[in-house]
Amino acid sequence: MTNQPIITILTDFGRRDGYVGAMQGVALSICPSATLVDLTHDIPPQDIQSAAFVLYQLFRYYPPHTVHCVVVDPGVGTPRREIALRTDRGVFVGPDNGVFSLVLRDSELLEVVNLTNRAYHLPRVSKTFHGRDIFMPAAAHIANGLPLGMLGPTITDLVPLAPAPPPGEGNCRIMHIDHFGNLILDITAAAIADPAQVSFTVGGQTIQSLAATFGEVAVGELVAYIGSTHQHIEIAIRNGNAAQRLGVKLGDVVKIDYFSEV
Amino acid sequence: MTNQPIITILTDFGRRDGYVGAMQGVALSICPSATLVDLTHDIPPQDIQSAAFVLYQLFRYYPPHTVHCVVVDPGVGTPRREIALRTDRGVFVGPDNGVFSLVLRDSELLEVVNLTNRAYHLPRVSKTFHGRDIFMPAAAHIANGLPLGMLGPTITDLVPLAPAPPPGEGNCRIMHIDHFGNLILDITAAAIADPAQVSFTVGGQTIQSLAATFGEVAVGELVAYIGSTHQHIEIAIRNGNAAQRLGVKLGDVVKIDYFSEV
Amino acid sequence: MTNQPIITILTDFGRRDGYVGAMQGVALSICPSATLVDLTHDIPPQDIQSAAFVLYQLFRYYPPHTVHCVVVDPGVGTPRREIALRTDRGVFVGPDNGVFSLVLRDSELLEVVNLTNRAYHLPRVSKTFHGRDIFMPAAAHIANGLPLGMLGPTITDLVPLAPAPPPGEGNCRIMHIDHFGNLILDITAAAIADPAQVSFTVGGQTIQSLAATFGEVAVGELVAYIGSTHQHIEIAIRNGNAAQRLGVKLGDVVKIDYFSEV
Repeated sequence: MTNQPIITILTDFGRRDGYVGAMQGVALSICPSATLVDLTHDIPPQDIQSAAFVLYQLFRYYPPHTVHCVVVDPGVGTPRREIALRTDRGVFVGPDNGVFSLVLRDSELLEVVNLTNRAYHLPRVSKTFHGRDIFMPAAAHIANGLPLGMLGPTITDLVPLAPAPPPGEGNCRIMHIDHFGNLILDITAAAIADPAQVSFTVGGQTIQSLAATFGEVAVGELVAYIGSTHQHIEIAIRNGNAAQRLGVKLGDVVKIDYFSEV
Repeated sequence: MTNQPIITILTDFGRRDGYVGAMQGVALSICPSATLVDLTHDIPPQDIQSAAFVLYQLFRYYPPHTVHCVVVDPGVGTPRREIALRTDRGVFVGPDNGVFSLVLRDSELLEVVNLTNRAYHLPRVSKTFHGRDIFMPAAAHIANGLPLGMLGPTITDLVPLAPAPPPGEGNCRIMHIDHFGNLILDITAAAIADPAQVSFTVGGQTIQSLAATFGEVAVGELVAYIGSTHQHIEIAIRNGNAAQRLGVKLGDVVKIDYFSEV
Repeated sequence: MTNQPIITILTDFGRRDGYVGAMQGVALSICPSATLVDLTHDIPPQDIQSAAFVLYQLFRYYPPHTVHCVVVDPGVGTPRREIALRTDRGVFVGPDNGVFSLVLRDSELLEVVNLTNRAYHLPRVSKTFHGRDIFMPAAAHIANGLPLGMLGPTITDLVPLAPAPPPGEGNCRIMHIDHFGNLILDITAAAIADPAQVSFTVGGQTIQSLAATFGEVAVGELVAYIGSTHQHIEIAIRNGNAAQRLGVKLGDVVKIDYFSEV
């Protein structure tokens, strides 16, 4: 028995226009038995870094035969390539703009192709909506079992994710702010020399040491802890919104200090 | 022939971070044939009362073999229990914080267990995301047919929903404001002595008597009527936003009076 | 082998109340094998024109056995009719208020019925929520293979979409603003006499000629081009938000001029 095909969709399209709805229709026209999963469509417009991070957090929870169709594509209509990647932990389809870079930290890349075979595009390909006309048709054909090699030639020189500007010695940056206002920093637990003697300063407030969970502080208090999936440091307010309280935004710098307990 | 498994998801996670996407991946990894349904992820953060009400409005429309995974969980990381309930009208999985109290008004409770059996958790359980690590694995195993008793010991002392502060004699409160700005009051039709001679005063405006529908008043006029599922009184503006017009918010008091027709 | 049933849902309900969740439960209770697709629930409240346009953009990407359940229904509770339409490119269920008018531009109407047969309503029909009590039950029975004729008598006099007020000679209007702030105009490419010598003036800015894609202008620049599905003219800013930059809103007038290249 073969696996039930799964196609996930992650975009910056929002939900109000029917752009996602068109992609879902293409998916079901090509692969009628697919289970479709909306990952999110609320990536900030054109924010490749944010899409890469959201995908990174969740791809590991999917069966490896899942096809993830990712369309955060500020370069649509320019010569950036359309690609499909097979890894040991899932198949990924989208623009070659670095959006899969974080996934490749924790998975083994087995094959990458450039989606140039027009036989697997929609008959009429627009200049502005490759999610519908190129990416989803490829994803749905792969979900049907089509070998990646049919979709176009193998490539090896993937475009990497553009790095954030360096935050300065002893600093890090806010790389994601979630729905609850929790701040995810671009530094992982492995980089913290001594979790018991570290402090984080941001928005004029200093948080001392790393806790294991929200529950270790009182409601309304700031806390720093290690994110459960990605091991990045997070800063939150128990049952509150840290981003609002601290008045910070994506990309802001967080100062890291070590202190000695006397 | 067995039923097609159905798993619904209701959270306060929003959609932009991929937290829901991780739960969906866990669901499909454990129960690949499940139909996944997003109920809503827009419960106000940590608002157990609101989640209980939304669930109450819709659970009765699902087949009884449906598993509802509900994660509005301000107590995550504290000693609150994780539970699964079987009723005659559906199975429910989530934190033991009262979020299922309204469902139990209109269904028969058959079994409750505490989800302590680690064999059915994810291998690594985080301190901050039990929706992914405990609740959804339990929901998906139940959808696969696992008896509740396998998930942990039976319990009987469910935590009830914390009541709103009493509104004062002859008053009620706004318990929910919907997407259209309609106000749902925490009082049902059964408590209204005479629907033809009742009035509701809120935001400086008085609405006389209960109508059967929006259609009984002109566009732009205020109307009070009986909600179609839950029999709670609602206040709305035909084709308008009552919450904005009246300048009211969740929890505000509504005055109830009876008048004599002369 | 029969087709896997597909039911799409398009509403102005938002997602936070569970209204959509109730409709999904009704769908799965009647047609358990259905693939459910959320098109959007973010149509501006009561905006029939916007719903018609979103549906028009995407219906052509679905298999023709798809049943689209569309509930943007400011007339609920008044005597407007409930209808189901079969076309060569899909089946449509919803209120008879013009919401299907644009679909009928590009599809052949085969049959229309008035959903008066109470045997296919929910047992208790509310005055305010026909999406759950009438439209979705009809959609799910149709998805199960029920002939339209069982749902009620044939009708022929569909209510057309109310037209926007005429924009004035040589002008057009903004008929939709998408998630990215792109403006979709109520004029198609066919109406433009000379694409190389046309200009569009809106929000105090003039855009000269029609480009093929965003990629033809620099990041941050305004561009007019032909929409990929519907052939309507769109105005956008490459990697920016045109609606915000120009300070315009739905229904605003855009001036069309022709110039001679000297």
